[in-house]
This record gives sequence, structure tokens and C-alpha cells, in this order.
Amino acid sequence: MRVVVALGGNALLRRGEPLTAENQRANARAACEALAPVALEHELVVSHGNGPQVGLLALQGEAYKDVPGYPLDMLGAQTDGMIGYLIQQELGNALPFEKHLATLLTQIEVDPDDPAFQNPTKPIGPIYTAEEAEKLAADKGWAFKPDGDSMRRVVPSPRPKRIFGVETVEVLLQDGAVVICAGGGGIPVMYTDEPVPAGRRLIGIEAVIDKDLASALLAADLKADALAIVTDVDGVYADWGTPDQRKIDGATPEELSGSEFAEGSKGPKVNAACQFVEQTGGSAVIGSITETQAMLRGEAGTTVTRAR
Amino acid sequence: MRVVVALGGNALLRRGEPLTAENQRANARAACEALAPVALEHELVVSHGNGPQVGLLALQGEAYKDVPGYPLDMLGAQTDGMIGYLIQQELGNALPFEKHLATLLTQIEVDPDDPAFQNPTKPIGPIYTAEEAEKLAADKGWAFKPDGDSMRRVVPSPRPKRIFGVETVEVLLQDGAVVICAGGGGIPVMYTDEPVPAGRRLIGIEAVIDKDLASALLAADLKADALAIVTDVDGVYADWGTPDQRKIDGATPEELSGSEFAEGSKGPKVNAACQFVEQTGGSAVIGSITETQAMLRGEAGTTVTRAR
Repeated sequence: MRVVVALGGNALLRRGEPLTAENQRANARAACEALAPVALEHELVVSHGNGPQVGLLALQGEAYKDVPGYPLDMLGAQTDGMIGYLIQQELGNALPFEKHLATLLTQIEVDPDDPAFQNPTKPIGPIYTAEEAEKLAADKGWAFKPDGDSMRRVVPSPRPKRIFGVETVEVLLQDGAVVICAGGGGIPVMYTDEPVPAGRRLIGIEAVIDKDLASALLAADLKADALAIVTDVDGVYADWGTPDQRKIDGATPEELSGSEFAEGSKGPKVNAACQFVEQTGGSAVIGSITETQAMLRGEAGTTVTRAR
Repeated sequence: MRVVVALGGNALLRRGEPLTAENQRANARAACEALAPVALEHELVVSHGNGPQVGLLALQGEAYKDVPGYPLDMLGAQTDGMIGYLIQQELGNALPFEKHLATLLTQIEVDPDDPAFQNPTKPIGPIYTAEEAEKLAADKGWAFKPDGDSMRRVVPSPRPKRIFGVETVEVLLQDGAVVICAGGGGIPVMYTDEPVPAGRRLIGIEAVIDKDLASALLAADLKADALAIVTDVDGVYADWGTPDQRKIDGATPEELSGSEFAEGSKGPKVNAACQFVEQTGGSAVIGSITETQAMLRGEAGTTVTRAR
């Protein structure tokens, strides 16, 4: 099977855990040790989130006063380098030496008129108290929204329209490599009207694309058989937080379209899974990274298919 | 011809120019417009330096107090993402849409017993006054060395021993892609004694590899016909700074082995060029990025060959 595994931010950094180099490396190592058997059994593409990391780089950039902070496309590209490196190194350690691995940068086109630019929703960086958030909003003009009992910075998260470089991923998969790409939802870019040899000029834009939607589009473009969205929870739950809560083992996109999932913490993952299934007829599965292999056999997580 | 072009830090950021996002993008654009014709005529691999950028990220990391600064391998990987993105985007704009481009992360093995770890020499980050440097040395334990009339932070720059992922570059070149890789001299890694499925565990190490030596090794591994080391100066000069100064059009490694070059500002470039020529019999050329095409025809820059 050809499989795209989207690593959740929570699989790379646990909520509330300090964003140190050591924690990132330890979590990347655990994630990659769980993914190694998948790489041996399937054609594997790994994508990943970057919410905590891109937020940290933005804070570091603001803290250093001699040079203005960098825009989110360049910061996102920085996180792709850093996280991609950790995944490539740790997955490489966990696989036979002969297995090739390649980490590619991925530009993804978004629409500059996407309504997301008027309504930032994507949380990045650490969690703050209400008081800290208020001060940062006043100082830097950043937007904040509640996240559990805390506050987090939010940035525009436009829909991914087109992924550049899919043919390169295809070439490397056919060569037998594990490909790490579309990190942080891809680097957000848009077309301007300026004519250049390539057609119109492509430039970066200040946004962070949802990594699950980007991964669903990538999986569809690559004609993947399965999309696995892995995190630190073992599946999608009905009636979450009530005495009746129960894990959903299998569902169709129609069955999952109820607002209880779309609005919950699993909303973006459920949406992305449904989008991939509806567009391609492939199967999508949401669950814990430690169960990825069993999920791909339909034996763990929440499997989404067109029919049951 | 198969060509490796190593973009000097000075081709991406002019000395003393503030390291803003705008300056980096403008310089990357100019560099890529100069490289586009080369990509149309030859098989092209682009590597690049990261001295100013990795130094800036280190400063940003130190300025933000809530999380300790990251090690140089992770910072180097960040710069590879950022600079690689700018080059890929701007080179893509300057080439026909059909031309594929791929930016790959590159790990390069170094020897943990390399004497460079006892004698840091690689300048990174901005230039400082002697007073500023003294304060930073005291505060952060960083090492500094003179750079012209100013001071710069220096870090260990071990020799590159082995490049990982050359076979992936080869696959992409055969597919007709322009490959951007070995950024910042590659991400410095070393083997530990810990057994892992791949053999021994690979980990990052705090260093910045010289990008010209890394590019020479990459060019040799790829059996490139030519290595072009491009910067903002039009070649190697004899008697630089004297009334007799003159550009050297062509030379053998023996002719360039005089200490006047090895110790000058062109020293690392001359060394890397000679290494490539001696190892492979290919030709290396040092000169201005705006003349890259003419340099590859032997009509500009300083060409180094085994015999004349």
C-alpha cells in the first residue's frame, strides 16, 4: 500500500511540555520508532504539524530586537528544516541503513482571498494565561483565542489549493525512499499578477495551513491507498466527555458529518479524513501513533471509508 | 555537463547588510535570476552557505528566555529550510513552469575527534565591535575572532567526512530536476556507539561545516563535471591589495598552493576547488555569481584544472 502518515503536533510535542530541543528530539525518536515498521511494510510519506514550533520561532524572532521578525512563510520553512531533520535522522536510525529517506520542502498554493485571512483560527506557539495573551495582543497585534483553560495565538489558516512538487515525491517513492514532506501543512504561497518566466510570480504569504487538510490533498494527489492521521489519542469518540463516551471504530463521511465531531478537538482531523475518502475512495484512519500499523490493517483507531 | 554551484554567503547577504527577510529575499532573487540560464543549460545542483543566518537564529534563540537556545545542528537545519525555500521559490519563478525543483535536507558526517572542535574558526552571525564581542563572550561563552576591522562569533568547522543521501540527489537529477541541497555545509552529524537497526546511532553535533568543502565532496560524489564556487568577487587575485594585484584566470592546484591564497579571504574556496580538481580531474571555477554561465565556459572567474 501507499500510505501518507500525518504526524500531529501532539505526537511531536505533548501539550504543555516545554519546547526544548531535547523534548522535540525525544518525541521525534518515539514517533519514528513507531513508524519504522510501517516504512518496512508500505510505501510511506510522512507529513507533520508545526504549530508549537512556528510559534516559538516567531517569539524568538520578536525577542531579538536588532532584526525585525520574519514572516510566517519563512518561519514555516525553518520549522520544516528542523522537524524534517529530526524525523529523517530518527527514522533513519530505526530502519536498516539501506533504506533511503528524503526530506523535501513543499510549497502549497493558497487563495489570497480565502476568508481565513479575515478570521485567524490556527493556534500556534505555547499556551498563555489570559493576562499574558492580552499583553502580547496589545504589544504585537497578534490575535488570540481560548484553548481549553488557556489562550493561544491564532493565525490565518487558508485552505490548501494546490501542492507543488508532487511529481518529485512520486519519483522518490518509486525509487523506494521514505519521503518526509508537506511539513507544517506546507509553506503557504500565492500567485501575484507579475509576469515571470514560470508564468506569474509565486510569493510567500503569512499563514499556517492546516497540516491535516494539506496531508489529505497530498494523499489524493499521490493516489495513496490510505491516509493515517496520528496523534496521542486512540481514535474519534462519540459523546466525548460524557459517561456514554465511546470510540468509533468505523464510520462513513456521512456518519461523521454531525456537528459534534466537526466542532470538537478532532474536527480538523475528521474533516481531512472525510475529504480524502470522498475524493479518492481510499480509506482514512485516525488514531494513536503507537498503533499506526494496526490502524492500517483496520484493527485500531477510527477508520473512515465510503461504505461499511 | 553536471554542475554543482556553491552559493557563497556573500551572494545571499552582502557584508554589513541587515539580515532582514526582505534583504534575504532580494538577494536570493538576484542570485536565482543569474542561475536560471545555468539550470536550462546544465544538470544543476545548488548548495549554499548559512553563516549569517545560523548566527542570527542563534541570537534569536538566546534572546527569548523561556526556552533554552537550540543546538547548531537544529539551527542549521532551520536555515536549510528557510534559504532552500527562498532559492526554490525564486529559481522556480525564473525558470519555465515545467522545470522541476527539489530542496533536500542533507546530513553530513563529521569526526567527533576532528581538531576543529578544539579550535573554532567558522564565522557566523553579524559583525560586532570589539566591545560587543567581549560582552557576548562573557555572557554566553561564545568564541570570537577578528574579521576585518570587526569581530565575529566563530564555531567549530570540522571536515565533512561523508554525505548521506547522494543517491537521492542522483535520482532527482536523472529525473531532470534542479536539486538544492547540502545547505549551510550540510547538517553536521556523527556516529555514537549505540547500536540501532541502521547500525550505530547517528546524532547531531554542534558545528557548522564549511560549505565549500561540503560542496566539493558533494560534487565528487555526484561525479560532477564542474564545481562553481560563486560569490560577489570575480575571481582569485594574486598580490591582492597591492598595486600589482591581478586576477588569476587559470591555475593548477599546485600553482594555487602558495600560502598567499590559503591564508587570504579566498582560502577556503581555493582549498575546496583544489580538492575537487585533485580528487576527480574535473574543473572548478571561482568567481562572481553574475558570471556563472561564462565561468562554466572558462571565459570568466578563476578556473582550476589539473593541467593547463
